Amino acid sequence: MPNLSKNRQDPALVALGEALRRIRLNHDISQERLALLAEVDRSYVGRVERGDNNVALLTLLKLANALNITAAELMVEAGL
Amino acid sequence: MPNLSKNRQDPALVALGEALRRIRLNHDISQERLALLAEVDRSYVGRVERGDNNVALLTLLKLANALNITAAELMVEAGL
Repeated sequence: MPNLSKNRQDPALVALGEALRRIRLNHDISQERLALLAEVDRSYVGRVERGDNNVALLTLLKLANALNITAAELMVEAGL
Repeated sequence: MPNLSKNRQDPALVALGEALRRIRLNHDISQERLALLAEVDRSYVGRVERGDNNVALLTLLKLANALNITAAELMVEAGL
């Protein structure tokens, strides 16, 4: 059993990741494309979508903007 | 002129800090009280309100919950 970081699988991070994934798929874009648009590493998008990363605000904004939504809309979609 | 961290005074962080401060003052609670409720360090609340900290999601949630609002509502108040 790998050593899970203490933030891993926090319900809020999982909810954010699932919301990000839903919106990304609605936009029919790949993780690679989102990473490119948001100027983050591709593996980072994967970690966020799996709920493995306690995303900081400025990155949240980059991801939301890359999907043409606001951070508030992303929070609403995630139920946060 | 002190060496400002690269995140310092990012417009989004300033907007978040100002929103947090407005809501806190509307609730008529001190930074100390908010820090206690959100289980963060008092000086941390000050840094966030000054726009000096790129707040991570889990802390955003603790601050919002301590003010009885959602992270989405905090984002809307900050215009993010």
